[in-house]
Amino acid sequence: MEFTVITKDRGSKARLGRIRTPHGDVSTPVFMPVGTQAAIKALTPEQVRGLGAEVILGNAYHLYLRPGHRLIADLGGLHRFMNWSGPILTDSGGFQIYSLGTLRKITEEGATFQSHIDGSHHFLGPETAIEIQEALDGDIMMCLDECISYPATREEVEKALGRTARWASRCKNSRRSNRQALFGIIQGGVYPDYRKRGVEEIAAIGFDGYAIGGLSVGEPKDLLLESLAATAPRLPEDRPRYLMGVGTPEDLVEGVYHGIDMFDCVIPTRCARNGLLFTNGEKVVIKNARYREDGLPLDSACDCYTCHHYSRAYLRHLYVAGEILAMVLNTIHNLRYYLRLMERIREAIREDRFRDFRDGFLRAQSG
Amino acid sequence: MEFTVITKDRGSKARLGRIRTPHGDVSTPVFMPVGTQAAIKALTPEQVRGLGAEVILGNAYHLYLRPGHRLIADLGGLHRFMNWSGPILTDSGGFQIYSLGTLRKITEEGATFQSHIDGSHHFLGPETAIEIQEALDGDIMMCLDECISYPATREEVEKALGRTARWASRCKNSRRSNRQALFGIIQGGVYPDYRKRGVEEIAAIGFDGYAIGGLSVGEPKDLLLESLAATAPRLPEDRPRYLMGVGTPEDLVEGVYHGIDMFDCVIPTRCARNGLLFTNGEKVVIKNARYREDGLPLDSACDCYTCHHYSRAYLRHLYVAGEILAMVLNTIHNLRYYLRLMERIREAIREDRFRDFRDGFLRAQSG
Repeated sequence: MEFTVITKDRGSKARLGRIRTPHGDVSTPVFMPVGTQAAIKALTPEQVRGLGAEVILGNAYHLYLRPGHRLIADLGGLHRFMNWSGPILTDSGGFQIYSLGTLRKITEEGATFQSHIDGSHHFLGPETAIEIQEALDGDIMMCLDECISYPATREEVEKALGRTARWASRCKNSRRSNRQALFGIIQGGVYPDYRKRGVEEIAAIGFDGYAIGGLSVGEPKDLLLESLAATAPRLPEDRPRYLMGVGTPEDLVEGVYHGIDMFDCVIPTRCARNGLLFTNGEKVVIKNARYREDGLPLDSACDCYTCHHYSRAYLRHLYVAGEILAMVLNTIHNLRYYLRLMERIREAIREDRFRDFRDGFLRAQSG
Repeated sequence: MEFTVITKDRGSKARLGRIRTPHGDVSTPVFMPVGTQAAIKALTPEQVRGLGAEVILGNAYHLYLRPGHRLIADLGGLHRFMNWSGPILTDSGGFQIYSLGTLRKITEEGATFQSHIDGSHHFLGPETAIEIQEALDGDIMMCLDECISYPATREEVEKALGRTARWASRCKNSRRSNRQALFGIIQGGVYPDYRKRGVEEIAAIGFDGYAIGGLSVGEPKDLLLESLAATAPRLPEDRPRYLMGVGTPEDLVEGVYHGIDMFDCVIPTRCARNGLLFTNGEKVVIKNARYREDGLPLDSACDCYTCHHYSRAYLRHLYVAGEILAMVLNTIHNLRYYLRLMERIREAIREDRFRDFRDGFLRAQSG
């Protein structure tokens, strides 16, 4: 993997870049659609690619449990298994383990947990996380980290911070080759000094890229932004910076503002399935009766397939009738909204006017 | 609408034809995917077209209840509403009313029924059925008929037969123009003499095409075939013959053998969503553990997108994981299987070898 910063915005920390992977190039800042179970929910890979996605996410925890990483390896790896020929980043499973709550127990060795599917018992340590991700054979792997919830005491955060750093070393040491890139993850909760220490410890180990984890776990928005600002600009300049699992369109814009290059989030796809659709200016709850007879497209400014061919009245009908096609068309729109937002962000950075873009975008969203 | 018989098979009643509609031509014998609620379940219209579908079904009963035929008319008709530019046949709702069981009461005037959605009370008579279908503005409308279940006494069948004929006249008399074609429906249960009388009565009224209704409602397969054989060959030669709501791949082959030109059925789409997939030779229950590690395509002989890009192991994984994409990929395959079967049938008729084709097909299915 190779990362190049092409240009920097002068009014912010935003930067335009390119990640070169064995499966193709990625223009940054980039949004990565989430394909948790080896599928972007409701869409074919061709549809995802057609929306402008350049890289997608897979998930070690989910694929380890079902269908099994060995099976995917035997069938030629995740790219072939799911018919996605572009770059794939695999998450380590740290966040999923964290989400299991009382179903998991974490020690220095790793995490023992019960499957969310059948309650069976499993162990996931740093070495296992790498083994699984090597079997999946994605382009970018993530270290196993210990994510903690909000609120957490300084003592709890410090403990998880140290463990995350030790696990990061173990992850790096256990990889069989450098063929797949490996990213380190910064924890530190909402404490700026711990975020700073996290950056120092993880950067000292040395990775192909750096991720900010443990945000969007329940903390207020101002603490998310404060933690982001305390972390992102300190990350090594010459490596991609990835803000994990965040967030809303506003979060993406703020992330870029603070120097983030990569994002992933289930918001656009999950909201789509729940009938919540993004447009510039307002979020549309498509089941609302006001759209019953509305012959207009969802968003006249949008270039997606859904907005080109269907009325709000039709989208409302499909959603209310429980048609699967509602999920397909809604997902197409929301993902395109996110991916087009990233295109507009990249354009603004290229033209050195990202700060204005950000101010205008945030004003429009709150107005 | 214009119907031309292009050629007839010499070893059977099968015929190759073409239906010309305001929205394009249809090669017969044809299978029409079912778009009950203004959508082919799980697929975009472009995907449906790409599978080779030339005409699709809409349903007056469902669209009257939700979103309302007036709304669809106000938004430019069903073609525009659902983004399907090809021919559409709209069913009258007779079969849906029949399916409501105790929720409906049928008198000479028409059917009073309770909505399956919210229990609200409604009336659907022959004139209403035409009014709804004219609002939907499909290419082919169907008369309202009285469908009865199996078993039924001769007296019950005779009563429904007479009513269906009187309703057919009322349907024909109530249309506002001849712009949309109108098909009559033959009832008569499993009694060959009543089927014969049904043909005579409905043909005497005179329609653009003729449908066989009231089959596949619980009767044994041999009685279905017997009733089909007693009805289809008696229908006017110069009009399309449509076997409603039937059936399995074998039923389609047998229908063509007896001179049927048009079919519709939810079997391919519904089975797809339930993980039952059609191939030549065997029906695949994709969740079966035997496919867990199976890297082969679902059907190596199939030319569909699903078979070209995915393994059985992947399809099993998607289905077991409850991914929406499972329904999409399975529906693509099953619909393509049905549409390709019709292509093979038309080719066999064109080459005057349909009887051999039929014998070989039925042998392969039972073997």
